[in-house]
Amino acid sequence: MTPGHGTQAGEDARIVRTRADVARTAFDVLVSEGADALTHARVAERAGYSKTTLYKHWPSRFDLAAVALEALGDVAHHERTGDIRTDLVGELKAFRQAVLDRRLDQVLSAMAQWATDEMMREVRNAVNTDGQRPVRAVLEEVFEGAELEAAISMLSGVVACPSLMFGTVPDDDVIEAAVDIVLRGAGRAGAEHRSPRG
Amino acid sequence: MTPGHGTQAGEDARIVRTRADVARTAFDVLVSEGADALTHARVAERAGYSKTTLYKHWPSRFDLAAVALEALGDVAHHERTGDIRTDLVGELKAFRQAVLDRRLDQVLSAMAQWATDEMMREVRNAVNTDGQRPVRAVLEEVFEGAELEAAISMLSGVVACPSLMFGTVPDDDVIEAAVDIVLRGAGRAGAEHRSPRG
Repeated sequence: MTPGHGTQAGEDARIVRTRADVARTAFDVLVSEGADALTHARVAERAGYSKTTLYKHWPSRFDLAAVALEALGDVAHHERTGDIRTDLVGELKAFRQAVLDRRLDQVLSAMAQWATDEMMREVRNAVNTDGQRPVRAVLEEVFEGAELEAAISMLSGVVACPSLMFGTVPDDDVIEAAVDIVLRGAGRAGAEHRSPRG
Repeated sequence: MTPGHGTQAGEDARIVRTRADVARTAFDVLVSEGADALTHARVAERAGYSKTTLYKHWPSRFDLAAVALEALGDVAHHERTGDIRTDLVGELKAFRQAVLDRRLDQVLSAMAQWATDEMMREVRNAVNTDGQRPVRAVLEEVFEGAELEAAISMLSGVVACPSLMFGTVPDDDVIEAAVDIVLRGAGRAGAEHRSPRG
């Protein structure tokens, strides 16, 4: 990543552009062709760079996978309103949209497959911790301990399970039913109540 | 699969044994080395058969994947007691055990990766429909419509999400918390009540 010759600014701009091109292309290969296809040869071919350039900056398949995941950085989240039910439903719909637009389901399953490698395991855990953060933040207002962990996995599962297991996404009424079951299950009478249960 | 020469019985027995060997080996390759490694060369090497034999009976990688999934046939389920809470907790613990013993998480993510292929999509859907059947049967006593779909995905997610996303399985208290939240969320006062809500 250190600039070689040429002006510092010109070289830096080129590196940034190359990195963005390769990240986007590697991500596209990953979600459209599967983890098997994520090779230096395939990304070089689709991005229009030489394999030499790719190997120079991203020597291993691990590096290719990591740079592909950088393209996830701009996945949209729901903007918090302060109403717990609205925020949970909104965040699950944003998750569903990312499955449809960015094939987050393919990313999830690819990361699970790569997890036989220690480094990839760390990358996967960081990406998934990051992805669950908004739902966790809302649920922490209502749950704690084992119930909090259960609620986070359950609401992630409403979108993740159908997409990973059947290639489908839940309708609005299924997302809303899930949030209502979880909030009722916390002993809350309805969505209006904001204070944690006693 | 038609017997060639030799006695019918001896030939049939040999075919059955070969199929079982290959299914077990293909399954082991899949869960220990990942979907990338599931090739005729690798399975032949580990099973001690020639590549020719493998190509003869299972011409494509699709066939190898399908035969690997036959080894899932004997995954243990929980035996129904009639008590809804006990049966849901028991089934989720059986799911968790299969993740630990049979690496069901790796199978799930491999199937999701293969799903770019139409035939593999059908196999995956059949395997997952089968896997969810016991939980669905119990939840149908309590839920219907969108709530039923939400509850099935949520309880699958309690085991599937941590294993796929973080390589961990939930503790007993998380499984029990999930079942309790879902049953309370259905408007049920407690585990003793067996009748569907009105």
